[in-house]
Amino acid sequence: MTYVATMSDPLTRLIQQLARLPGIGERTATRLAFHILRAPPSYAEQLAQAVLEVKQRLRECSACCMLTEVDPCPLCADARRDERLIMVVASPQDIMAFERSGNYRGRYHVLHGLLSPLDGIGPNDLRIRQLLARFAGSSPTVEEVILATSPSVEGDTTALYLAKVLKPLGLKVSRIASGVLIGGELEYADGVTLHRALEDRRTL
Amino acid sequence: MTYVATMSDPLTRLIQQLARLPGIGERTATRLAFHILRAPPSYAEQLAQAVLEVKQRLRECSACCMLTEVDPCPLCADARRDERLIMVVASPQDIMAFERSGNYRGRYHVLHGLLSPLDGIGPNDLRIRQLLARFAGSSPTVEEVILATSPSVEGDTTALYLAKVLKPLGLKVSRIASGVLIGGELEYADGVTLHRALEDRRTL
Repeated sequence: MTYVATMSDPLTRLIQQLARLPGIGERTATRLAFHILRAPPSYAEQLAQAVLEVKQRLRECSACCMLTEVDPCPLCADARRDERLIMVVASPQDIMAFERSGNYRGRYHVLHGLLSPLDGIGPNDLRIRQLLARFAGSSPTVEEVILATSPSVEGDTTALYLAKVLKPLGLKVSRIASGVLIGGELEYADGVTLHRALEDRRTL
Repeated sequence: MTYVATMSDPLTRLIQQLARLPGIGERTATRLAFHILRAPPSYAEQLAQAVLEVKQRLRECSACCMLTEVDPCPLCADARRDERLIMVVASPQDIMAFERSGNYRGRYHVLHGLLSPLDGIGPNDLRIRQLLARFAGSSPTVEEVILATSPSVEGDTTALYLAKVLKPLGLKVSRIASGVLIGGELEYADGVTLHRALEDRRTL
């Protein structure tokens, strides 16, 4: 591209880096880059630091596998949350979606993916071992496991697999109702839909 | 917001910083943040560095006022560009738009704004003094000044003001045709439209 060669280098580099983000084309990247350029220096510093820290300081909670700066994570450390319920989700974004809806007060477990035999993703690629470890202890505080994977082929496969593994442990296993849009992404569902899906969970 | 309090801090901070960008809402910011989180560490480092450098290393070219890392900027330093033509634009983005269209091979001058008496922006707030300095020298290499400000009230006002100032210097002063969309932003015009607007420039 002609203009890249003629453009000042730091600006071109920023546009190129921004354009690598999903859904950000070259024009949007250009607009964002100029916004950063015109904003106070403190904004560029805060943004750059936030970008670095998200990679450097986040790790998985040793209990629920949520991304966290402290271990256990704030959700696991919160004594007010109901220990009898564990909701299993595919990703940290799904926890954020449920927390945004504000209707769930139990615990979580993040699988960091869904079973997908075609893509070569099996049970050992997800945080299933860590999930089972939560029931291995002495006193059985957990009574119900809510499977909140998306209503897709992978989400259903994962829910069926987990139900098969968890029921022999004497746990009540439920699945959120597919009030959630079929084929849609869980993280984009609205709070009311998520609430309904939670209320309508079925025992498997 | 409930979920912000429960979310891991670096992630919340990144989402908040990204959501300050124009056109980026909280959901998009969340999606971008998780993309950065899942991308290789090298991406986060490159992005953070690009954000910082755009603020730290760019300054204005002493000739054309374009943002640049080196002075004079690559556009001014390029001996192959026609010194007889100077195109006056409002912003660095406009140069990028014309360079993208690839039809202009003359020089540029960036005003860094447009006259807007209602907003208190007068001639001294733009790089008009620097523009006039380019004609003050000995041999008159510049023959024509092309006013490529947008076809808006401010763009027209600026063009009329510059025509009044430049014509007494014996320069040919032209204005790009408003093949450019009326009321639109110059930086979003397509290459063909920009080419047409350049071809149809009128002598003022």
